[in-house]
Amino acid sequence: MNVIEGGVTAAAGFEAAGVEAGIKYKNRKDMSLLYSRVPCRAAGVFTGNVVKAAPVLWDREIVAHSPYAQAVVVNAGIANACTGKQGYDCCRQTAKKAAEELNIPEDAVLVASTGVIGWQLPVNKIEAGVEKLVKEKAHTREAGQAAVEAMMTTDTKPKQAAVEIEIDGKTVTVGGMCKGSGMIHPNMCTMLGFITTDLAISKELLQEALREDVQDTFNMISVDGDTSTNDTLVVLANGLAGNAEITEKNADYDKFREALHYIDETLAKMMAGDGEGATALFETKVIHAATKEEARILCKSVVCSSLTKAMIYGHDANVGRIMCALGYAGVDFDPEQVDLFCESDENRMQICKDGMLTDYDEEEATKILSAPEVRVIVDMHRGEAQAAAWGCDLTHEYVNINADYRS
Amino acid sequence: MNVIEGGVTAAAGFEAAGVEAGIKYKNRKDMSLLYSRVPCRAAGVFTGNVVKAAPVLWDREIVAHSPYAQAVVVNAGIANACTGKQGYDCCRQTAKKAAEELNIPEDAVLVASTGVIGWQLPVNKIEAGVEKLVKEKAHTREAGQAAVEAMMTTDTKPKQAAVEIEIDGKTVTVGGMCKGSGMIHPNMCTMLGFITTDLAISKELLQEALREDVQDTFNMISVDGDTSTNDTLVVLANGLAGNAEITEKNADYDKFREALHYIDETLAKMMAGDGEGATALFETKVIHAATKEEARILCKSVVCSSLTKAMIYGHDANVGRIMCALGYAGVDFDPEQVDLFCESDENRMQICKDGMLTDYDEEEATKILSAPEVRVIVDMHRGEAQAAAWGCDLTHEYVNINADYRS
Repeated sequence: MNVIEGGVTAAAGFEAAGVEAGIKYKNRKDMSLLYSRVPCRAAGVFTGNVVKAAPVLWDREIVAHSPYAQAVVVNAGIANACTGKQGYDCCRQTAKKAAEELNIPEDAVLVASTGVIGWQLPVNKIEAGVEKLVKEKAHTREAGQAAVEAMMTTDTKPKQAAVEIEIDGKTVTVGGMCKGSGMIHPNMCTMLGFITTDLAISKELLQEALREDVQDTFNMISVDGDTSTNDTLVVLANGLAGNAEITEKNADYDKFREALHYIDETLAKMMAGDGEGATALFETKVIHAATKEEARILCKSVVCSSLTKAMIYGHDANVGRIMCALGYAGVDFDPEQVDLFCESDENRMQICKDGMLTDYDEEEATKILSAPEVRVIVDMHRGEAQAAAWGCDLTHEYVNINADYRS
Repeated sequence: MNVIEGGVTAAAGFEAAGVEAGIKYKNRKDMSLLYSRVPCRAAGVFTGNVVKAAPVLWDREIVAHSPYAQAVVVNAGIANACTGKQGYDCCRQTAKKAAEELNIPEDAVLVASTGVIGWQLPVNKIEAGVEKLVKEKAHTREAGQAAVEAMMTTDTKPKQAAVEIEIDGKTVTVGGMCKGSGMIHPNMCTMLGFITTDLAISKELLQEALREDVQDTFNMISVDGDTSTNDTLVVLANGLAGNAEITEKNADYDKFREALHYIDETLAKMMAGDGEGATALFETKVIHAATKEEARILCKSVVCSSLTKAMIYGHDANVGRIMCALGYAGVDFDPEQVDLFCESDENRMQICKDGMLTDYDEEEATKILSAPEVRVIVDMHRGEAQAAAWGCDLTHEYVNINADYRS
């Protein structure tokens, strides 16, 4: 597997664009298009929130019932959630306009929105945006960059990744982009994420690969514990790599799974590290848990705790808060068997042994916890399972951003 | 029911004290004593966290197996959690010292701690503190005030309440005090709370009344979603009011339940409103839910959401965040049936009808959300059940306090 530059336009046949449409933001790109020159198999996972945004309702239908998908239209600024029938009609009008401009069927167009909940989208601006997007779309790295930038809301960095693998003697590319910074606690998937590949694979296996992989990637991050109404992750596979279509779980499938996992994990970690107001990526890894599910629950509890997040911001190795967050996770364990370590890329230190503080050097611990990527390792001494979760610190800037988001 | 001044020393026969013991804080009271002149029936509820502080382990034993209790020794500054056998031995030594000084059995002494997790308590300072406490204890309002002040950590206000009721022709008093500001998301009870009454009542009914009542009071508040290792709520009943002992659920029991509920709810709301860094008490009331349990889950999800808490701090009526928090609570409902109102003591306004924003006046909404006590009313239109939960806003000061708690 080779990591390469770029994102959604890395794979053969995929074009993208990002333009200014003036939906809510001024003087910045706020609409994106993703397009494949040929029809794609599509798979998707969507928010577990019962309050689902209109585009989520639209896309679920397309992924489940359309023979194929070929384009995605995204806007930032307004979420098109809690917008009733008018909101759903707007999805249809957006798809209709894109279908006309791209000369593809309406039910091959996915839509996605992120931003303020409760406001209606200005349909005329969306339609004008679609016209511009179709004119500008291109199979270039720059076009991919424009698309990912146009999706950003409180994100401070565009998030994309791409890899190449070899399957059936052909070079297969998998690339992706995502946005997400606040209201991030995915349940089924992430905020908005789009993955493209020129692999030929059956729709069933594509869906299965995606559903399985989000459990260890996008579902293991949290910025604020709030599961959004708009969470959407879609993968499009257009088959242009020319490999014999993958229809069973063979070695080729495993290679693809590995590439997909790399993209998913990379994007998920980028999202956690760019959480609203974050100054650090905060990883918790639970090892030697009794079961995988237990490991997931425990490490997610630590990265979701307001008190551990504030502790990371303060560079303070407060063992008690970590033990406390493990303790209320809902797993029944013996605290006196737990060991804790804190770790940066340069250093590692044991801060808790058998559930009690070690005699660690506070200054050294503070140094470790001041790194831009900080890990807490939890050794449960109960079995062989492990899992990791990613979050960020809780900062003054998070409060700034969210005390007055809509203005 | 008459609301009266005071707290734990309001009921007949109860004495208290608060002194400087230099456990961790300097130049302030940090140890409290609560004492009854005669033996008490004791009931208690304790943290659901599997990482339980030593005093929680000690008190559970006393409440379950001792024939009676007669004193409580509390320290602030160090939690005595994650302290292993040494921590438990410290509880025993504290109880032994108090028993000697008060001339009561060791197993009639409860202990409680709050503060930093992981550090060992200085036993000699605790013992010296107990000596001072016993010398200073008194059945006065001032002594009760000293006891509640000495329990405070990041609390900005002492929290106490008392009421009088008439039972069996006798005046019965119920009073209480509590502390709690951070790591507040009680699961079985609150941070540290102590309730005293001169009522004569069977141990079984006392325990049942307490267990039932916390479900609608202390278990319905949250400051930061973190369930502490030390949560303890104990009620002591010494029978000095002289009523015939309550041994069944009759009208007298109901009167006591009402008084206990008043004390529990008052203290719980005081705790939520004095959450770390809070500028407002944030109440969410869910009405017309299908079941009581559903109502509890929904309103707790709203007061626990970082995004709604930041919204209250910003005085911003962001309907989408409230709908979102309801949506991920784990209750399956139709968003298009939900109505939302925001409310202060002076004003009330509908901000959402049938799951969509009303055409409300933003300026007026901001005015409502700028009050020191803010309510969101959620009408589910599903049935007859209702519940309320209490929290506070998420502020810069919360981050300040928790980025560097231990120094």
